[in-house]
Amino acid sequence: MARIGIIGSQGRMGQAIAAAIGEAGEQFAGGVDKGEDVSSITQAADVLIDFSSPAALEGNLDAAMAAGLPIVIGTTGLEERHHWLIDAAAQAIPVLQTGNTSLGVTLLAHLVREAAARLGDDWDIEIVETHHRMKVDAPSGTALLLGEAAAKGREVSLADHAVRGRDGITGRREAGTIGFAALRGGSVAGDHTVHFLADNERLSFSHLAENRGIFAKGAVRAAQWLMGKQPGRYTMPEVLGL
Amino acid sequence: MARIGIIGSQGRMGQAIAAAIGEAGEQFAGGVDKGEDVSSITQAADVLIDFSSPAALEGNLDAAMAAGLPIVIGTTGLEERHHWLIDAAAQAIPVLQTGNTSLGVTLLAHLVREAAARLGDDWDIEIVETHHRMKVDAPSGTALLLGEAAAKGREVSLADHAVRGRDGITGRREAGTIGFAALRGGSVAGDHTVHFLADNERLSFSHLAENRGIFAKGAVRAAQWLMGKQPGRYTMPEVLGL
Amino acid sequence: MARIGIIGSQGRMGQAIAAAIGEAGEQFAGGVDKGEDVSSITQAADVLIDFSSPAALEGNLDAAMAAGLPIVIGTTGLEERHHWLIDAAAQAIPVLQTGNTSLGVTLLAHLVREAAARLGDDWDIEIVETHHRMKVDAPSGTALLLGEAAAKGREVSLADHAVRGRDGITGRREAGTIGFAALRGGSVAGDHTVHFLADNERLSFSHLAENRGIFAKGAVRAAQWLMGKQPGRYTMPEVLGL
Amino acid sequence: MARIGIIGSQGRMGQAIAAAIGEAGEQFAGGVDKGEDVSSITQAADVLIDFSSPAALEGNLDAAMAAGLPIVIGTTGLEERHHWLIDAAAQAIPVLQTGNTSLGVTLLAHLVREAAARLGDDWDIEIVETHHRMKVDAPSGTALLLGEAAAKGREVSLADHAVRGRDGITGRREAGTIGFAALRGGSVAGDHTVHFLADNERLSFSHLAENRGIFAKGAVRAAQWLMGKQPGRYTMPEVLGL
Repeated sequence: MARIGIIGSQGRMGQAIAAAIGEAGEQFAGGVDKGEDVSSITQAADVLIDFSSPAALEGNLDAAMAAGLPIVIGTTGLEERHHWLIDAAAQAIPVLQTGNTSLGVTLLAHLVREAAARLGDDWDIEIVETHHRMKVDAPSGTALLLGEAAAKGREVSLADHAVRGRDGITGRREAGTIGFAALRGGSVAGDHTVHFLADNERLSFSHLAENRGIFAKGAVRAAQWLMGKQPGRYTMPEVLGL
Repeated sequence: MARIGIIGSQGRMGQAIAAAIGEAGEQFAGGVDKGEDVSSITQAADVLIDFSSPAALEGNLDAAMAAGLPIVIGTTGLEERHHWLIDAAAQAIPVLQTGNTSLGVTLLAHLVREAAARLGDDWDIEIVETHHRMKVDAPSGTALLLGEAAAKGREVSLADHAVRGRDGITGRREAGTIGFAALRGGSVAGDHTVHFLADNERLSFSHLAENRGIFAKGAVRAAQWLMGKQPGRYTMPEVLGL
Repeated sequence: MARIGIIGSQGRMGQAIAAAIGEAGEQFAGGVDKGEDVSSITQAADVLIDFSSPAALEGNLDAAMAAGLPIVIGTTGLEERHHWLIDAAAQAIPVLQTGNTSLGVTLLAHLVREAAARLGDDWDIEIVETHHRMKVDAPSGTALLLGEAAAKGREVSLADHAVRGRDGITGRREAGTIGFAALRGGSVAGDHTVHFLADNERLSFSHLAENRGIFAKGAVRAAQWLMGKQPGRYTMPEVLGL
Repeated sequence: MARIGIIGSQGRMGQAIAAAIGEAGEQFAGGVDKGEDVSSITQAADVLIDFSSPAALEGNLDAAMAAGLPIVIGTTGLEERHHWLIDAAAQAIPVLQTGNTSLGVTLLAHLVREAAARLGDDWDIEIVETHHRMKVDAPSGTALLLGEAAAKGREVSLADHAVRGRDGITGRREAGTIGFAALRGGSVAGDHTVHFLADNERLSFSHLAENRGIFAKGAVRAAQWLMGKQPGRYTMPEVLGL
């Protein structure tokens, strides 16, 4: 049984992770929050999950390295310098950093990349997502992650090919572009669909999240997978063996 | 058996209507096109269907009035002065003018209006449509027609409540707005969905057109319905008894 | 502020209703469960919601009548004799009995009935639903409720026209039938779609429940609506003014 | 420019293939039908496409071998002995036999297999398809092909795990099964969706055919790909490089 410590344990994700640890049959090794010393939980833990804040990242990595513990980092809003810190820590311990811990989304991105690689430019790519009415940005980070996967499959840059917020007299659709559309309303936890539209047929790949528990579950699975790995920087697709 | 004449008979819609007349068990009474005299077909016809051009409208109405024939007008791009001409003609003959002759879309708009009237502002309305890659404008005319139906149900103005092309930092969704999103790709004849999204549940109403034949079929049904009516201006919902 | 009493307050629905009472700004007047005397809560209550058991129904109605309180009955598994008891009680107090308290499903059924009434037999009706892997029966009660709505719209008997579990060499689809299909998996709270499929076009009407909270919310809204009504037997569509 | 001969050229698929040959920029080398000698077109052709009948298969293969021409076989209803004939012919010439020539479906099956291989038994698999009202069997051959792909991904036998025509008191869903549901109505050319349903999330993979032209297009692409190959028996996934 893995003993899992949580950094940021009182946040919404932290609480969901504590629940997911029990559901996965693992042991909650303790949690820390803003202002508390991470080293207070490292002794009792086999692996750490960090959903705290970018500002806390350096201290968290130091504590993990001091204790020789693997760490899963789900904190969002990281900048380039945070990634340097992660790369440095990955010399000493196993680190998995990701912006989306859902296993379903991870697999979806992988399959979208493969589909985009196999299908020519005569298959138009359109990505549509729906989120609750409180979401303040569009398209969602996950939609962009899926767009990146499609662009990689086609070996093009997403920035050069994205078409967002289509409205008015747009002219004919330009071949090779990747369209994004965003719907907002209700309490939708997150629906994403990637369409490939050709003459007379279409393929559509969708992920629907019923609630945020899937992100906690995926974080725990990543932690389980990360234990016993060599030092290095890992990604969610590797957890699924992709 | 109704004898149906077509104005604009060589256009894409005209040809589809000629086929639909046969499928409906009615008789094709002849067709005219640009530069031809409409009165050449009025004698053999019981009713006319006009899918020609705004420029030809006045002459077409004159010919229908001279022969005392009902006329279905599916021509798009009409301006205010064309509507005055139609109103005037409707004093003498039955006229049905519409921007969408599909019976399915007509019913959908009716039901969307009713749903919007019954559901409060805690149900967010979002309209998404998909069309082929050659379409040059967004959202589609049919999406706007559905948005108008929703706005009427709520007794608000669509112009004041429409949110189009959502992208970037949009902030939280404003209550009472009606969102539009447009996907483009492949050869899609036209998919439309109106979502009503509330806390923990959603209702979705969709229409999917496999091809343009449905518009021809609806025009013929409108023509059948219009025969024997009193002079006046009629609409598609009336054809369905709505 | 309405004071709402719950019969069956410790059950899954009872607990959800207690939460929904607070969210609706009303007051929880107390609850009773198996073996407890309903009259203990009638004095403090303005209206009752009963999600207990068929066996308890007679006693619950007696207590409501003795106190002159309106009562919403969401108990499932009722038999004919239970409906007689309800009819008798409705001579003295307002009673609303329903197998589905969701406002969204109630509206959907109403619109499906209207669509079925407007569209001819050349529109084939198919109903598909998805529920979690623990559900033991198919199709769902809500799917059958929607099928009943479609059959009523067509003025036919559902029992005579239902086609369930299509498999093998079925032959061509018979005109006028109403098909049912059931998917099972995961933790899906309940998706229902009614398709109307014609030549070259289709209309689809869907309801998606994210969780069971919507049934509690609808029960509370029904209770609010029922207060102050004349004695009689009422239905969910009336709550929505349908 | 490839010169493509069609066996079964007057059938519905044969005519669609003739059109698709032109659209692909290739040359129609002639067609034969029941009672006609296939060798009459082999001299002018670089490759053959056979959509005739099982009874004609042996003669068609003999003619292709005599002329040393590659052959695409899309004929349905083949039995074991037909496959022996194909295997024997594949010693001498390149042969591609398939029950579904759609490139989109071919890719979909590949991705479904991969998803099934990556996702554990806690992801329930359900396959739902919709076809026009004239279809006499359920589930569709393509739904079964997708089910086979899912079963292969899981390394189980589809026959042992398929659940078809779910209806009545079914009990809880059994882990590891693959469910099938069939909708029938209108003129739907063919929609297929494979759902993977887990706790709190689901993945769905869909293919929608607008019309049968995609099968003709895929057959022509298979023919183009087959030219110049070594003798042997090939499959549609190889055409896409899968």
